[in-house]
Amino acid sequence: MPPLFALQLIFLACTLPHVKAETKADFLNVRANLLSLEHGLKTGGDLALDDVEKAANKVLMALKVQELDTALGSGSFPPSTHFFHAKSAIEQSKVFQFIRKMPKGAALHLHDDSLADLTWLVKNATYRPDCFMCLNRQGALQFTFSGSWPPHDPNCNWRRVNATRIETGNATKFDAELVANMSLIREDPKMAYPTQAAVWKAFEGVLTVANGLIFYSPVFKAYFYEALREFYEDNVQYIELRGLLPKIYELDGTTHDEEWVVAAYKEVTEQFVKDHPDFSGAKFIYSSIRAFNQSDIAKDVAKAVKLRAKFPSFFAGYDLVGQEDPGHPLVYFLDTLLQPGQQHPPVDLPYFFHAGETDWEGMAVDYNILDAILLNTSRIGHGFALTKHPVAMDLARKKGIPIEVCPISNQVLKLVDDLRDHPVSFLLAQGHPVVISADDPSVWGAKGLSYDFYQAFMAMGGVDADLAFLKKLALDSLRYSSMAEDERSKAMELFQQKWKSFLHDVLSNGI
Amino acid sequence: MPPLFALQLIFLACTLPHVKAETKADFLNVRANLLSLEHGLKTGGDLALDDVEKAANKVLMALKVQELDTALGSGSFPPSTHFFHAKSAIEQSKVFQFIRKMPKGAALHLHDDSLADLTWLVKNATYRPDCFMCLNRQGALQFTFSGSWPPHDPNCNWRRVNATRIETGNATKFDAELVANMSLIREDPKMAYPTQAAVWKAFEGVLTVANGLIFYSPVFKAYFYEALREFYEDNVQYIELRGLLPKIYELDGTTHDEEWVVAAYKEVTEQFVKDHPDFSGAKFIYSSIRAFNQSDIAKDVAKAVKLRAKFPSFFAGYDLVGQEDPGHPLVYFLDTLLQPGQQHPPVDLPYFFHAGETDWEGMAVDYNILDAILLNTSRIGHGFALTKHPVAMDLARKKGIPIEVCPISNQVLKLVDDLRDHPVSFLLAQGHPVVISADDPSVWGAKGLSYDFYQAFMAMGGVDADLAFLKKLALDSLRYSSMAEDERSKAMELFQQKWKSFLHDVLSNGI
Repeated sequence: MPPLFALQLIFLACTLPHVKAETKADFLNVRANLLSLEHGLKTGGDLALDDVEKAANKVLMALKVQELDTALGSGSFPPSTHFFHAKSAIEQSKVFQFIRKMPKGAALHLHDDSLADLTWLVKNATYRPDCFMCLNRQGALQFTFSGSWPPHDPNCNWRRVNATRIETGNATKFDAELVANMSLIREDPKMAYPTQAAVWKAFEGVLTVANGLIFYSPVFKAYFYEALREFYEDNVQYIELRGLLPKIYELDGTTHDEEWVVAAYKEVTEQFVKDHPDFSGAKFIYSSIRAFNQSDIAKDVAKAVKLRAKFPSFFAGYDLVGQEDPGHPLVYFLDTLLQPGQQHPPVDLPYFFHAGETDWEGMAVDYNILDAILLNTSRIGHGFALTKHPVAMDLARKKGIPIEVCPISNQVLKLVDDLRDHPVSFLLAQGHPVVISADDPSVWGAKGLSYDFYQAFMAMGGVDADLAFLKKLALDSLRYSSMAEDERSKAMELFQQKWKSFLHDVLSNGI
Repeated sequence: MPPLFALQLIFLACTLPHVKAETKADFLNVRANLLSLEHGLKTGGDLALDDVEKAANKVLMALKVQELDTALGSGSFPPSTHFFHAKSAIEQSKVFQFIRKMPKGAALHLHDDSLADLTWLVKNATYRPDCFMCLNRQGALQFTFSGSWPPHDPNCNWRRVNATRIETGNATKFDAELVANMSLIREDPKMAYPTQAAVWKAFEGVLTVANGLIFYSPVFKAYFYEALREFYEDNVQYIELRGLLPKIYELDGTTHDEEWVVAAYKEVTEQFVKDHPDFSGAKFIYSSIRAFNQSDIAKDVAKAVKLRAKFPSFFAGYDLVGQEDPGHPLVYFLDTLLQPGQQHPPVDLPYFFHAGETDWEGMAVDYNILDAILLNTSRIGHGFALTKHPVAMDLARKKGIPIEVCPISNQVLKLVDDLRDHPVSFLLAQGHPVVISADDPSVWGAKGLSYDFYQAFMAMGGVDADLAFLKKLALDSLRYSSMAEDERSKAMELFQQKWKSFLHDVLSNGI
């Protein structure tokens, strides 16, 4: 708990029961004090803006007020609308354009196979001469790369993509269809995905399609480079990505093991940083599927321990992923998850557990948040359910464990419709540690971090969330990253430079 | 703050940062302690069930687990579904039948013209020979009662209802249409009401139609008696109702003033209690429209002060109602609202302000919650936005000001879709003072309090909310009512008798 917050709570405890306001002047005085106390508790409420920041804030808040007025007038507010329908309005928003330009620090909750633009993927993967496709018996598109014609498969009648594209006579339409097969975007998402189970099934389906392209070694590296480029272009300076470490394959069908895959991520990152010296890099979090059984997870944790030893600075730690409700709760894997810490000396394996990505209060998985904290998780992925657990909330705050909030993901995956109802509002209102991230932006047509920052800024921080709120979120993303202290201080320095030049740009050139 | 809660917070503050769990036994031990701490903080967590209650709780929880299993299996959960579509599933629920039978204490947030079943209203009002109707130029149904043919109105071609009904040749269909004109129920509510503004407009429209019937003096009294009967039948023993004190009219067109109206409510209540000695009564809260201007409200507050003096035990206090977002914030009426407390000696006028019935954090009306508290409101109507205001939340808790939560109203009036996302979850998880109420049940086809209790129990209290949770909500509804101490202790005694006989019935006869 920051000392200021503690102090304010003591102030509250001592004074509030005695608040009395009989005259109008008294009333307005007490009111102003309480509002200022409340404002101080908010995310960013403890940041003092300097004069240049105040000037930029004026620009920002004028745009925000204007857009809120429009929303009140029209009854249409992008964060209250499904992202598929709100996206173009967001892109036209000046607030969004401000946020796009703004240095946003780090994106800490991302999955490696859903980061880069799908149109880029189609252009840069499916035009390769060795790319094959079929519609399998389940009706799903399937891709593979192969030096010769892929072996006969009764389930899948392989055809060369380039040849098929030519046959259709309309490459634009064909490519758009390929994109659509890797995307969740539908005209009527509520009709297409009536339940959480339905949207998760479709989500896993579209990822599987894309994986046929992404897991081919040359595409794999190019895809990750492109992902870094898109985040860099969106003024994000560092990312942490979760991945399953799948078998990456070559044209001749040979595959690479996990160590090769981590090394490939590391090399691409180093190349990207070499090409873009004002980017602070990336780290990797190995993630297993939470539906797996205990012995699978035991093997994966052992792998994680080895990889952490092999890549101590790049391999940040371990997580469990997949839809939480039908998966095993963390406590099911307790023996394994406690195991590294029980060694003498303890083996260092930081955890970054997804936990509380559920609407079901009190089901077994709903205790994942508490278990993640007791397992010393470094951050909590989503933590959507955290506010329903006051003890876990208090503990997370005291231990400085942030939740990684992915607003658009939560909306598309049907945890919440109107983002003004997202429970992180209550955490942001009391300055609880929060970072904003993008989860799987490509799958819903987002790019980088700005769309999610926009939602947080417009809907979850309230009307008076301002530049201090945004700066605090950016600073906290670096603070709660897995960077070592020297990496972090370099990244912070870089951030300050970017921030200064951003302010200069806004004040000189406008939005 | 209850002393137990304070003690637990101190325990948390002292012990949690040092929590360490290296062995599995340690882990499970710490986990169990924290879960039990968390359970203790919840609404009802401080209530110990006796053996009979434990046996009834077993029955209840078996039904609950079964219904949750069904929901998980089918993907269809009534509180996550719009009430218009969930209603019949709720009525088939055994948990709902348990709750129907259960004594629920008081309903404290109700509006006088939307309480009784619309089918009852049609049968008992529109069959009277003096009932006239028209479709006015705006396309809205309009009713009036008149001893002779109502005066010519170019906007409204009056016809006798009974004659019209006969002409249609299908009384059942005709009556169903009359009901539909006073109801918000539509086949596709999301299509019919795309925005909050749209549903509020329709809401005010259907109330206006019903008011043409309800404001006729004999219907007015019969309607209120029927409302009491429906709540009584639903095992509610006491209500507080808000009303605008409209002009109630007679067949000859003469109208009655506010004092007559309050006296009529009081007489009907007394008659009902005479007929049903195991009913604890009702009180009235005068409510003005928050869109009115300052001088209107000044007049209404003056009226309220007079009526409070005239009916000190029946007239409970004052409120402002109507859609909050477009209305004036409380602070706009500050001079008037402070005025009674500034007299020497202060004039006694308790407040029961609607506040925070909004999704908009930080707009002017969003500070209504804080202002209501500073104006010493006895309860907060809705308080949907309370969790976004940690200072107001703390203050409300310390001052013992409950929020009146109306789950179905919040869903139908589009504050929140999936009731698992209702922010009261976070308040119930920490034992914040809450009462559950029904707001305007007739308009959405609910009856009494049980539908809303069901939603709170199944969706907002979490899986482990049990009989202690329900009993606590019932007890708190009596505790936070405006009853005088002697009335309350009598009501509590009555509740205990009803509770005992309910337990006996459940254990003897089942559900």
